[in-house]
Amino acid sequence: MSMDEIREECGVFGIYSHPEAASLSYFGLHALQHRGQEGAGIAVADGCTIRCHKGRGLLTDAFQPGDLKNLPGCNAIGHVRYGTNGGDEIENVQPMVARAAIGSIAVVHNGQIVNAPELREKLENHGSIFRGTSDSEIILHMIQRRKGPLLDKIREACSLLDGAFSFLLLTEKNLYAIRDKNGLRPLSLGKLGESWCLSSETCAFEAVGASFIRDIEPGEIVKISHKGVESCYYAEIRRHRLCAMEYVYFSRPDSDLEGQNVHSVRKKTGMLLAEKDSGRLDADMVVGVPDSSLSAAMGYSEKSGLPYEMGLIKNRYVGRTFIEPTQKLRDTGVKMKLSANSTVVKGKRLILLDDSIVRGTTSRHIIRLLRDAGAKEVHLRIASPAFRYPCFYGVDMSTRQELISSSMDTEALCSFLGADSLRFLEVDDLKKAYGGHGFCFACFDGNYVTQIYSYLEKLK
Amino acid sequence: MSMDEIREECGVFGIYSHPEAASLSYFGLHALQHRGQEGAGIAVADGCTIRCHKGRGLLTDAFQPGDLKNLPGCNAIGHVRYGTNGGDEIENVQPMVARAAIGSIAVVHNGQIVNAPELREKLENHGSIFRGTSDSEIILHMIQRRKGPLLDKIREACSLLDGAFSFLLLTEKNLYAIRDKNGLRPLSLGKLGESWCLSSETCAFEAVGASFIRDIEPGEIVKISHKGVESCYYAEIRRHRLCAMEYVYFSRPDSDLEGQNVHSVRKKTGMLLAEKDSGRLDADMVVGVPDSSLSAAMGYSEKSGLPYEMGLIKNRYVGRTFIEPTQKLRDTGVKMKLSANSTVVKGKRLILLDDSIVRGTTSRHIIRLLRDAGAKEVHLRIASPAFRYPCFYGVDMSTRQELISSSMDTEALCSFLGADSLRFLEVDDLKKAYGGHGFCFACFDGNYVTQIYSYLEKLK
Amino acid sequence: MSMDEIREECGVFGIYSHPEAASLSYFGLHALQHRGQEGAGIAVADGCTIRCHKGRGLLTDAFQPGDLKNLPGCNAIGHVRYGTNGGDEIENVQPMVARAAIGSIAVVHNGQIVNAPELREKLENHGSIFRGTSDSEIILHMIQRRKGPLLDKIREACSLLDGAFSFLLLTEKNLYAIRDKNGLRPLSLGKLGESWCLSSETCAFEAVGASFIRDIEPGEIVKISHKGVESCYYAEIRRHRLCAMEYVYFSRPDSDLEGQNVHSVRKKTGMLLAEKDSGRLDADMVVGVPDSSLSAAMGYSEKSGLPYEMGLIKNRYVGRTFIEPTQKLRDTGVKMKLSANSTVVKGKRLILLDDSIVRGTTSRHIIRLLRDAGAKEVHLRIASPAFRYPCFYGVDMSTRQELISSSMDTEALCSFLGADSLRFLEVDDLKKAYGGHGFCFACFDGNYVTQIYSYLEKLK
Amino acid sequence: MSMDEIREECGVFGIYSHPEAASLSYFGLHALQHRGQEGAGIAVADGCTIRCHKGRGLLTDAFQPGDLKNLPGCNAIGHVRYGTNGGDEIENVQPMVARAAIGSIAVVHNGQIVNAPELREKLENHGSIFRGTSDSEIILHMIQRRKGPLLDKIREACSLLDGAFSFLLLTEKNLYAIRDKNGLRPLSLGKLGESWCLSSETCAFEAVGASFIRDIEPGEIVKISHKGVESCYYAEIRRHRLCAMEYVYFSRPDSDLEGQNVHSVRKKTGMLLAEKDSGRLDADMVVGVPDSSLSAAMGYSEKSGLPYEMGLIKNRYVGRTFIEPTQKLRDTGVKMKLSANSTVVKGKRLILLDDSIVRGTTSRHIIRLLRDAGAKEVHLRIASPAFRYPCFYGVDMSTRQELISSSMDTEALCSFLGADSLRFLEVDDLKKAYGGHGFCFACFDGNYVTQIYSYLEKLK
Repeated sequence: MSMDEIREECGVFGIYSHPEAASLSYFGLHALQHRGQEGAGIAVADGCTIRCHKGRGLLTDAFQPGDLKNLPGCNAIGHVRYGTNGGDEIENVQPMVARAAIGSIAVVHNGQIVNAPELREKLENHGSIFRGTSDSEIILHMIQRRKGPLLDKIREACSLLDGAFSFLLLTEKNLYAIRDKNGLRPLSLGKLGESWCLSSETCAFEAVGASFIRDIEPGEIVKISHKGVESCYYAEIRRHRLCAMEYVYFSRPDSDLEGQNVHSVRKKTGMLLAEKDSGRLDADMVVGVPDSSLSAAMGYSEKSGLPYEMGLIKNRYVGRTFIEPTQKLRDTGVKMKLSANSTVVKGKRLILLDDSIVRGTTSRHIIRLLRDAGAKEVHLRIASPAFRYPCFYGVDMSTRQELISSSMDTEALCSFLGADSLRFLEVDDLKKAYGGHGFCFACFDGNYVTQIYSYLEKLK
Repeated sequence: MSMDEIREECGVFGIYSHPEAASLSYFGLHALQHRGQEGAGIAVADGCTIRCHKGRGLLTDAFQPGDLKNLPGCNAIGHVRYGTNGGDEIENVQPMVARAAIGSIAVVHNGQIVNAPELREKLENHGSIFRGTSDSEIILHMIQRRKGPLLDKIREACSLLDGAFSFLLLTEKNLYAIRDKNGLRPLSLGKLGESWCLSSETCAFEAVGASFIRDIEPGEIVKISHKGVESCYYAEIRRHRLCAMEYVYFSRPDSDLEGQNVHSVRKKTGMLLAEKDSGRLDADMVVGVPDSSLSAAMGYSEKSGLPYEMGLIKNRYVGRTFIEPTQKLRDTGVKMKLSANSTVVKGKRLILLDDSIVRGTTSRHIIRLLRDAGAKEVHLRIASPAFRYPCFYGVDMSTRQELISSSMDTEALCSFLGADSLRFLEVDDLKKAYGGHGFCFACFDGNYVTQIYSYLEKLK
Repeated sequence: MSMDEIREECGVFGIYSHPEAASLSYFGLHALQHRGQEGAGIAVADGCTIRCHKGRGLLTDAFQPGDLKNLPGCNAIGHVRYGTNGGDEIENVQPMVARAAIGSIAVVHNGQIVNAPELREKLENHGSIFRGTSDSEIILHMIQRRKGPLLDKIREACSLLDGAFSFLLLTEKNLYAIRDKNGLRPLSLGKLGESWCLSSETCAFEAVGASFIRDIEPGEIVKISHKGVESCYYAEIRRHRLCAMEYVYFSRPDSDLEGQNVHSVRKKTGMLLAEKDSGRLDADMVVGVPDSSLSAAMGYSEKSGLPYEMGLIKNRYVGRTFIEPTQKLRDTGVKMKLSANSTVVKGKRLILLDDSIVRGTTSRHIIRLLRDAGAKEVHLRIASPAFRYPCFYGVDMSTRQELISSSMDTEALCSFLGADSLRFLEVDDLKKAYGGHGFCFACFDGNYVTQIYSYLEKLK
Repeated sequence: MSMDEIREECGVFGIYSHPEAASLSYFGLHALQHRGQEGAGIAVADGCTIRCHKGRGLLTDAFQPGDLKNLPGCNAIGHVRYGTNGGDEIENVQPMVARAAIGSIAVVHNGQIVNAPELREKLENHGSIFRGTSDSEIILHMIQRRKGPLLDKIREACSLLDGAFSFLLLTEKNLYAIRDKNGLRPLSLGKLGESWCLSSETCAFEAVGASFIRDIEPGEIVKISHKGVESCYYAEIRRHRLCAMEYVYFSRPDSDLEGQNVHSVRKKTGMLLAEKDSGRLDADMVVGVPDSSLSAAMGYSEKSGLPYEMGLIKNRYVGRTFIEPTQKLRDTGVKMKLSANSTVVKGKRLILLDDSIVRGTTSRHIIRLLRDAGAKEVHLRIASPAFRYPCFYGVDMSTRQELISSSMDTEALCSFLGADSLRFLEVDDLKKAYGGHGFCFACFDGNYVTQIYSYLEKLK
């Protein structure tokens, strides 16, 4: 819940060799809609031409019945977009298509290129012009600038990109999938009959009836053509450093990342929090902030034996064009997104599970909501460690000032939030819960997995 | 989940004496949006005139920014509408306004008048004309036909109406709230500073910052004017027979009906189901069908000690104008609303909680979904008794043929659904869970609380 | 041009026995769109049921592709609506449908019932309720209140209606066309193969490929059924008193009214004006205010021998949702609807033809426009006599105060408008131009062709 | 009328130093809407940043109330776009903005760069990537590729462009206006108080209250900055070769091009046609095809003394989203755009004026329409010479095959069209009517004013 307004994640989906490529992209993107609601688009190649349709807002805003029929072809890539940075928004909506005499390329990408400003400056100095502010445009330029076969161009270009990214490239005939060498952003390969799928999250495979094959490896380039799937690497040094936020907040509970189910991992974090509290805390019930913190709350309840209750209700009908309450009405108690279930929480001692704390304002608001509804005690438990360091890999919190945990210790924060007690998950417990491969915990421990380049200056 | 396509509930909201009556109605209706997504409208009185705005679809479709500004005045009523019966739909969208030289009346209503066909025929014989097919129009005619002061006209008219209904009447100066004499449909009174609120469900009070005062009584007419709240009754015999479906499916978990919290009641039904299974059933986890069956699943888990897991995920972005998958795509596995969380359910024995079974098609689909995802066993538990009798009070299932439980016993149904076992809640357990006042259980036991009139013929 | 904001005309179209009744109604209404841009609707009967679709705005706003497919059936009536009186607009959009057990009726009507307030009061006293403020609703009530066969009910009801009206009634099987006994509003019968058409103006026949048969007579009821066309009269005394405004402004130039072509009649008025000026006025060119005054300008030019020039240009792209210039921008010279053709008029002496003067504000604005563009002289010629008396038959100018000619003589008006000279067409010349049957010239001479009832009071 | 579906003109508007730059651009573009209905956009600079809003369709589709408020700043350029070439349409809608660290540039342009394919190939070879298919993108690349001060870059880039173009460039602080060295496309400078305006046609000056100052000269670059208006030339050889089609069809009658009023020039062409017929042709009336041929019809009527009549009526309500009649309905006589005024033309001998003949299908349809309405004779007179050569400067008729006059002589064409006689304006008469500066008559005489490059190949 807390991350709602600061994230900048996207979702990509691709399909190769299916007669209904546009429709399946649509339904695949639909399962990824939680990764971006600011724009959506699909590009389809029919062997000769790339056609593209895109628009602002949800998939249902961007596509009208009939639009899919104008996208014939068997290979497709699609995108759902988060974030509204940039002035002329429509220029930044993906897929982005470069049209050239020797052939066109469409690209969709998820993540952030850390050395984008440096690369862009260099490109501009050599005469490249940019129509938007998106990293996708840089990728296109980096590739098109090189010479030789496309695969070589991609390999060479990628070796110069630093950051967290997954992207799909569509040509008139082939489809390419690339993941950054630290594996910060997820990307998986699936199969649907004789067709191949690619998706930011595996939940989209389930949605289109495809089965999961494997994750794209860090630093890998997968090329899908009529010869099938071929693979190569563009980087020597490759590591598994999946962004921890994918588990904490971004992904859907029914997705598997690096072989682990998101819901199950989140549940484990709740259990670990319960273990720490064991024998030290008397409470009546466990309440999760919907929707991202419900799994952790289930875990806490299961481990602690305390009842799991629906103490907070999220209104499902909050859309983009909603008429918002004025500040005046908000002050008198009008609320739109979240309600407390008063009868349930009244007079009760609550363990409240939330996924994370960024600025602290949302958590404070929720605790206030529960107290107004009569909750006797609110013990806040956060299913991730304290955010102390800014992220440069796809979360819009570039300056340290906004992170309340970088300026307040837990005690001060607990008092600021109005909670009776506050506990974060320890980084060690997080590692225990996540298990498996390594992760990027930079926002918790400041150990960035790439160089930071000019971003560092913004921090000062 | 199962009732999604057969229900015909609505939501009403009213406010008296608030400078932002239209806005508050909007936000109140927003909290009632789950009760109706087919149309929405608000009528506002400013002491002299009644103005009305309404449209098809969700509140966000029906109202554009600016529409609320065209509705000045301190008293208002609003409506969200379920159901698409009737040819010329816009004529049936509420509020409905009767404009007359001696004064105008606006009405919003929730429920069904059982003797509507008889009343309508009589009215038509006396020269009344109807523009739509809605019961609200009958209410307006019944009232306007009488003579004398409005309160007398309402009282006289209501005494002739039989059925399940709550309605609000707005005149240029006053607001009236009426509930049927069996209390089949809910209606509650709240207070917001010096203003009065009325709502089908108490969750709307929380949403606008109002506090719950009391339920409107069966057979009661509440008049709100500059003199405050006055009350009288239009029926001698009055009973508490709240529709059981309000607990089972219709209402939001954070609403209180007849003094009991909906989530808590649902949780109890899950516990009672767990008690019956106790010692007889080995399983690995409890899964609820989102959203209406989650509370029951929590209850079952808590009582049985089995882990509560997120085995099914509901896509939040299914809107009205969605591009649906073709049957062909659906056959190949494309799904939009509900996904199984494969990794979680694979190889596991599941207790699956659902709120009800109507036609059986949805339950069958869900069980199939879970089996395809690898579930080893699926034991279906229904948090209500078997539907055997048609409802005439606001649920669109007028003929017995559609109710699968009226033609199949539990064993046959279990096999039809593809479940490993099936258990309904017993009516006696339901009574235990619901406690308090009496209820209408007609759909389970056939004991209708009113006459059925011409509807009976439809059954044959 | 001058009448743009005060008129309240509508257009009706009907078709009997055509497999594409809804589509043809759509295209017929499209040709009548100039008669009303505030709402549009079509009702279609398929022998059993009447279905209706309607909406606000232009036909293109009210109907989306696909809407026509939902209107199966061979008989249809449609309506385009002018005027925005009434608070809850959608209730007043036509067709209006009365749904009753014994059969439904849809009605569309054009014009005004002068004794509507009296009839409405009587109906309300007998328990009728009204949802809108439209006269159509009164017609429905008047008919449904009576007993006996429908034709008798219509005949009896019509004999009580006084005013200017044409209306079409659609039942499940038949179609009725009725015209008021003074023939104030036009209504014509056409034939398209084996099908029958009805239209407010004959231009719609041309648009759908039908041929004109005859006008419906004043006081006539035409019934179209499987037996063909039958006719009867509901009034003893019947007269031809077509509203002069139909020629002056309302109708399309390619329509024929009472056997005469509108363009040709308008051209004659211009010629008669030229005759009066003959030998008395030196000028360089003739300019017409687009579009309604162009025919008169052509006539003036032809008779006088002065060149006809395009001195004013109308912007074709002024739509409903247009962003209007602020008053501040308007003051600095921003204009949207009408531009002067500066190079053409600069230094020239103009004869400016306009169809009428109501409030005088438009004419004044146009003359100012031409002077700013450099016109040396502007001699205003009006192709109708001075409006001195309010109209109660379908023009929204109920009070005498608004009619500038009722308080200013020609000389004063000329000076107010800033013209060099001003001449109206004399009533006698108008009669000469119009020829044929009689007309209603009440707005010019105060001789109302019906009683005026309660409207008289509004004048005081 | 005939050119409706083959033209590819656009309109540009710019304003410098006005507090309401966005609004005035909107109203200026509104007056240019006839030059393009496929897309519209405005870019505004506030000294630091360029903001841009654009969309598909009419100005009223592309801009919603409120959009203008998001465009603060005193300098602006805007565009209305004709033509739907290119797959991913939104990429081609203008203004196009290049965003670079050293400063952004927005461009709008009207016309066609004849050596675009050659330039594009060269740019691609040097690593430039293109997102759309529009010439504007080439302009941006050509400029950004060079080094030095912007004015030098523009001058150098323009010297390499060959074709028909006018464009406006907006930087954070300044505004540039450029016209091709043959002056094929019009562009004029106006003044509004202390602000400067630029427009494709002078009618937009009238619309915003500005006054005409002068035309931008062929080969001129005008720079507007806080120092005022500065001018220089980028080409040694400069000629006045305005496209004849601007007079024939493209421009609004109230615009002045190269010092002459469009309506007046068109009228002269009608007079010259009448002179040729003088004494050789008996007819009853003159009819013009609305709207572009009305001026010529007036001229013919004036010279010949034959009455000018409204024999054809254009429906004003044909919008973009209109439901079109099916072919079947069209065959039975349903028509949407143009109606014959039957009563007027029946039994009459008509001189029919049209602006041009391209494929011949429209003219044939209109003559058929008139004959069906009873016209006895139809003598077609075309206010321009026969199109025999394809245009490469902004009219979409790249291949000779489509031009019916390149394969049929006048006699054969007359018979194909079903006319009683047919006469084109001679090129010499055209020169007489147009007078003044030279013109490009390439479509009539094949004398192209520039090289044709790779376009020539398309002709074979």
